[in-house]
Amino acid sequence: MHPRYFEELEKYEKLINLKNEKADEYNGIFTRYKNPVLTAAHTPLFWRYDLDEKANPFFMERLGINTVFNAGAIKLNGKYVLMARVEGSDRKSFFAVAESDSPTEGFRFRSHPVILPDIDENETNMYDMRLTSHEDGYIYGVFCSECRDKVVNGNVTATAYAGIVRTKDLENWERLPNLVTLRSAQQRNVVLHPEFVKGKYAFYTRPMDDFIEAGSGAGIGFGVCDDIMHPVIDEEIIINQRRFHTINEMKNGAGATPIKTDKCWLHIAHGVRNTAAGLRYVIYAFATDLNNPSKPVAAPGGYLIAPEGIERVGDVSNVVFTNGAICDDDGKLYIYYASSDTRMHVAETTVDRILDYVFNTPADPYRSGDCVRQRDELITKNLKILSELENK
Amino acid sequence: MHPRYFEELEKYEKLINLKNEKADEYNGIFTRYKNPVLTAAHTPLFWRYDLDEKANPFFMERLGINTVFNAGAIKLNGKYVLMARVEGSDRKSFFAVAESDSPTEGFRFRSHPVILPDIDENETNMYDMRLTSHEDGYIYGVFCSECRDKVVNGNVTATAYAGIVRTKDLENWERLPNLVTLRSAQQRNVVLHPEFVKGKYAFYTRPMDDFIEAGSGAGIGFGVCDDIMHPVIDEEIIINQRRFHTINEMKNGAGATPIKTDKCWLHIAHGVRNTAAGLRYVIYAFATDLNNPSKPVAAPGGYLIAPEGIERVGDVSNVVFTNGAICDDDGKLYIYYASSDTRMHVAETTVDRILDYVFNTPADPYRSGDCVRQRDELITKNLKILSELENK
Repeated sequence: MHPRYFEELEKYEKLINLKNEKADEYNGIFTRYKNPVLTAAHTPLFWRYDLDEKANPFFMERLGINTVFNAGAIKLNGKYVLMARVEGSDRKSFFAVAESDSPTEGFRFRSHPVILPDIDENETNMYDMRLTSHEDGYIYGVFCSECRDKVVNGNVTATAYAGIVRTKDLENWERLPNLVTLRSAQQRNVVLHPEFVKGKYAFYTRPMDDFIEAGSGAGIGFGVCDDIMHPVIDEEIIINQRRFHTINEMKNGAGATPIKTDKCWLHIAHGVRNTAAGLRYVIYAFATDLNNPSKPVAAPGGYLIAPEGIERVGDVSNVVFTNGAICDDDGKLYIYYASSDTRMHVAETTVDRILDYVFNTPADPYRSGDCVRQRDELITKNLKILSELENK
Repeated sequence: MHPRYFEELEKYEKLINLKNEKADEYNGIFTRYKNPVLTAAHTPLFWRYDLDEKANPFFMERLGINTVFNAGAIKLNGKYVLMARVEGSDRKSFFAVAESDSPTEGFRFRSHPVILPDIDENETNMYDMRLTSHEDGYIYGVFCSECRDKVVNGNVTATAYAGIVRTKDLENWERLPNLVTLRSAQQRNVVLHPEFVKGKYAFYTRPMDDFIEAGSGAGIGFGVCDDIMHPVIDEEIIINQRRFHTINEMKNGAGATPIKTDKCWLHIAHGVRNTAAGLRYVIYAFATDLNNPSKPVAAPGGYLIAPEGIERVGDVSNVVFTNGAICDDDGKLYIYYASSDTRMHVAETTVDRILDYVFNTPADPYRSGDCVRQRDELITKNLKILSELENK
């Protein structure tokens, strides 16, 4: 063995065993942890180096890892499990399971990445898996499957589908046919709802442009299918609309698998707007009815999490994105989110707190003048409280 | 009152009372100050939190603030006043006055943000106000008013107008009709000149695309109107042209309200070029004739301020932008500028120094070969001086 291996192994173990602590910032809604929970450096050395000294005398990376991001999340057998999107230096993504006894540190990848059954030779890239522990007894993974497509003006374009796999142990995977949405040619950011809705499998979708009637606005869709082995959705209805001059002005999509609470289904999604420096992705939350997950019941204005500090910079800067959260037995909620398509972080809150946020944060009034009047009401109320405090 | 309020209040007061000092960098032209003068954290706690403990048991932000940037500036009753663009987490902007006894630190927002009269139900966003203390006795605020507009290919687009308000105390505001430029359908970055020009109100404008004849280049415009209560501009002339392969190759616009000096009207503007990572905004200066502010008299080559260090990163990275500067009684000039659409900074110089810069910085020769010859002349001259120094 090359002596450098042991040096690098020590660094690796030090990284994996690094204690994580809460960041100093305060907003009352959630708390970030200081260190990322997964980065490219968290992938095992034996995924990257050829350890055969004869074949690799310089001890160099033979298959580099670029980034680890956009992870699905689930708690399984007492472990916190992330289904990470791992991108090689060749820019293809694959999936890999990292797990820890702690929700905020110590995530270690299993020996092998996930190898899914191959059902289409044109499938070129796979990413952003949402894990859903469904009441039918399976854990489903719904992900974006990109196929090499037609050549347009000399450029090859990709077509995006929702791929579906299922498992009981995150080891052995059964691949189902890709989701068919009869009224939308492509799909990204599809999430399977954890429960049957009127006896059917229910999906959150993102109807693509050709679905959108001029002016209808688009947004996060909802549709059902009878048979998960032949998953076909006819009608998609919009449950969370894309809106002009909001944090989801340009596009939005489902994020983490919805979380069942006493009061609602909690959704943690992403919204995108355009800027002079490219797209900006933020994370936001909304709630739908417990008995009808397609019926919105609360939509707080603005974002929940926006990129801050080092999160602002990466392969695709100015992005935070979530496709996984874990609601723990003690009522704590861990939102796993990626920054700038580069690394995974965790933010902590509680179910009680996030429900208070979702139901009591004022809705977006959509116009600058109305927004400042909404804020001024809060200010006037607060100044009265402060003046009473002074007079005590 | 929630006990956390007092903890956060202490942090807030510490931030507001933080002393600012000059940065170490030197270029002879201006000096940056180390700390931003305004950030989202400078907005009062009672603008963000509901202080009613019953209504907000978790003491969480109910109306988050995303950023504070692009501030107009004026000295009024001995105070340095910034008219900031404040953006809520819902991405709508509004205006708020922050003031200090010092030009470089201690800026504190007034209790309430600015609430302007509502004149158009389609007005969706308002931002980037320039304050002009006009010789007619009013302080004018000219800002960008964006209206929700038509749907193009499923996307809602906005139309930008120049909104106009006036006041005598920055408390009570009268709203005038939006500026009409007969030959330009839209306007951004409009600034009112502080004096009458041949008895008329004069504006710096930015003629939009439909104004630009193919190849004519566009740039910062100038136009006059007879009646400020019915502000209509017919002809716009270009006083500072957008030029290929310069710092304003893609677009440019007026910045701070022009400053009257003994020698000229001093203009501090912004220029934009495109890059693979999005647009890059820098600040530059030029001068126009004292007796005819539409007549250019000096145009130093290159930029005055470009983003540096942390300024480079924010909601819209790679941007510095100014829409306010204060010329003090002692000849000091404070340029208030925002970085990356996220926070406000200040740079200090003097009128003497900036005039020397504007009149004695060589003009842009527009071609690489001419630029290097221009520099080589300077180098040759300098080497002669250095050699004479050695021979002494």
